[in-house]
Amino acid sequence: MTVELISVGTELLLGNIVNTNSNYLSKKCAELGYSLYYQVTVGDNEERLSDAVTTALSRSDVIILTGGLGPTQDDMTKEAVAKVLKRDLVMDEISKNHIETYFAYRSCNGTVPSVITSNNWKQALKIVGSTAVDNENGTAPGYIIEVDSKIIILLPGPPFEMIPMFQKSIYPFLKSKQSKIFLSKMVKICGIGESKAETEILDLIEKQTNPTIAPYAKSGEVHFRITASADTEQEAMMLIQPVIDELYRRFGNNIYTIEEEETLEAVVVKLLLQKKYSLATAESCTGGLLTGCLVNVPGVSDVLQEGIITYSNEAKIKYLGVKPETLHTFGAVSPQTAEEMVRGVAKAANSSTALAITGVAGPDGGSPEKPVGTVYTACYVNGEVIIKKNHFNGTRQKVREQSVIQALDMLRRNLL
Amino acid sequence: MTVELISVGTELLLGNIVNTNSNYLSKKCAELGYSLYYQVTVGDNEERLSDAVTTALSRSDVIILTGGLGPTQDDMTKEAVAKVLKRDLVMDEISKNHIETYFAYRSCNGTVPSVITSNNWKQALKIVGSTAVDNENGTAPGYIIEVDSKIIILLPGPPFEMIPMFQKSIYPFLKSKQSKIFLSKMVKICGIGESKAETEILDLIEKQTNPTIAPYAKSGEVHFRITASADTEQEAMMLIQPVIDELYRRFGNNIYTIEEEETLEAVVVKLLLQKKYSLATAESCTGGLLTGCLVNVPGVSDVLQEGIITYSNEAKIKYLGVKPETLHTFGAVSPQTAEEMVRGVAKAANSSTALAITGVAGPDGGSPEKPVGTVYTACYVNGEVIIKKNHFNGTRQKVREQSVIQALDMLRRNLL
Repeated sequence: MTVELISVGTELLLGNIVNTNSNYLSKKCAELGYSLYYQVTVGDNEERLSDAVTTALSRSDVIILTGGLGPTQDDMTKEAVAKVLKRDLVMDEISKNHIETYFAYRSCNGTVPSVITSNNWKQALKIVGSTAVDNENGTAPGYIIEVDSKIIILLPGPPFEMIPMFQKSIYPFLKSKQSKIFLSKMVKICGIGESKAETEILDLIEKQTNPTIAPYAKSGEVHFRITASADTEQEAMMLIQPVIDELYRRFGNNIYTIEEEETLEAVVVKLLLQKKYSLATAESCTGGLLTGCLVNVPGVSDVLQEGIITYSNEAKIKYLGVKPETLHTFGAVSPQTAEEMVRGVAKAANSSTALAITGVAGPDGGSPEKPVGTVYTACYVNGEVIIKKNHFNGTRQKVREQSVIQALDMLRRNLL
Repeated sequence: MTVELISVGTELLLGNIVNTNSNYLSKKCAELGYSLYYQVTVGDNEERLSDAVTTALSRSDVIILTGGLGPTQDDMTKEAVAKVLKRDLVMDEISKNHIETYFAYRSCNGTVPSVITSNNWKQALKIVGSTAVDNENGTAPGYIIEVDSKIIILLPGPPFEMIPMFQKSIYPFLKSKQSKIFLSKMVKICGIGESKAETEILDLIEKQTNPTIAPYAKSGEVHFRITASADTEQEAMMLIQPVIDELYRRFGNNIYTIEEEETLEAVVVKLLLQKKYSLATAESCTGGLLTGCLVNVPGVSDVLQEGIITYSNEAKIKYLGVKPETLHTFGAVSPQTAEEMVRGVAKAANSSTALAITGVAGPDGGSPEKPVGTVYTACYVNGEVIIKKNHFNGTRQKVREQSVIQALDMLRRNLL
């Protein structure tokens, strides 16, 4: 079955808000094994909205519309769909009661005015033959309409109304219409470029049917999503496993996880916890980005002792014990400084592992022998230090992101 | 002139990434005074992509496509557009050289393999009659094609390649096609909620015509975009200025800038530079986020001495001189600890200003008297300390973001 998403709202076309609804619904449809071929966004304009619905009905089995169900004149999704289907709008008593209760409850504590303005009753109108779906977080109900083997679903626009409604009512409904199970694993690779990674498995990509293999590039990483459809989860996993095994044969420990939700920093924290190691960080050009990314991992406080952001030379000397001669002779961006930083922070924190980063993130500060993008990453594990010289491309932000991934990946490989 | 956006990429249809490109480009088109009626997303499928291009050409003047310009088999935007326009693809020598230089530079330091895999040359092909646009952050160039009074623009998908390319080459090009001048200023406000801010200027919003006023909510901030159209930039500014003056009358120094690109952290760094003050930071629950956001400001190294991430109590004692009794009596999340942290880091760094943050970011660690979201922010300026107790809502990430903005805003107000 194919799905099409139609997001309704001029605020999306003006760029006032990011369309996170499309992202959420796309993910859910993929999870349910529905094929999504089109996402369309139109403004609060009845003609263009009706056209979009007509086009969608001609090419997709399920159409999910979000937005335009509110009380204002601009909200016209229900009206446009009714017109396309040539059906009337009628008052729905259940929705009417719901609106009354909602206002009664909230006007007590002053969240909404106690008088229900007349435009609110517009939200109690439903298309003949549709099923209204309760909105637990607002006044506009959702709707399901089944017509000529097509399904049309209308959902409110605000994510905090739409998501709970989808989870509670729409997801089970869509699941009941699907017979196949879809399962996917995400093979995440680090330390190898996108085009190189893809070239290495071009033969697998070319002969893919079930499971399918789809590459995704991320700053400094490459991900491959392996998706299989089958009658049961077990059968799907049996289709996926040989592909994962083959990817391990080709990429070895460049693969850091096969779990969708697992990040590189989470893998590093997990390895540290397993070995009961502690970690300290010393950052210059990344200025807290490495540590900030580590603290996103729940449970990191058992591992991470402290982080020092030594932007100035004085701070490098004072906190990390970097020698003034080293800074003078080789400069702050040098393997010698990187080594003294990483040893210094490990000593200060009395930690078993440490990471240090020093480099030129740009846009200024580059020189012919140390151009912007020159970054030294240093990794300390129980007295041993490894240092890597990197040349990263891109903006200041990009250089810093790649530096963080490089540092995390060094530690990961060292801990394996 | 009307614009249509076509985002290309199966990863968007699967929900693996959020479509921030559409949001960015929509904003920019609004800024340029182009009318955007449709945003369409299709996957890496030549037939559906060609159909989308054909439809767009039939109803819009300018079509901007993002994604599908990379080296892999999945990348087929150029091929689909060429087919719709019935034009050939030819090798572009400039793009070919660019790819060679890009790889030569990177293979020296091992970032990419020294052999350029053959699929990369695909990126040097251009549609006959198109103009290639330099990509300073990747190998895939962009393209501009003008055909029968229509304009087609092809941009790479990764935002860090697309945005700089758009800013440098596409924005000026689109601007040159507009006869009216559109000028906008972004009034950025901090320390006041969205609905309150909007209520305060409801009268202005209701009577808007030229200039228009559009509100944008951002984590912890409210922005109003004032846009005027006129024949000259000067005339447009004359329309905008009275509105800005009125907003200053109503919001005073809650407004921290009226420049689109200027961030709160940039304003803080600018104020510090003006006063020749230095800054040090001590972070607990934000774990480097505050400092990481400050180091995004070019030139910050003249201001920022050092940052200490003291996740553990030991680190708070060792580096910041927080008294063990204080931690024992009042806890790590307390005004007393916040004050000792901020004074401690200012003393250690010998800096004229300092910021400290300690709080419960969640999801765990809350208690009845200190629930998740309780955060103390402390600001030190030349011996004077101000401390603020905050109760932030939302996820761990959200609490941390709001803490950072609160800390930066405290320092900003203190420096004014």
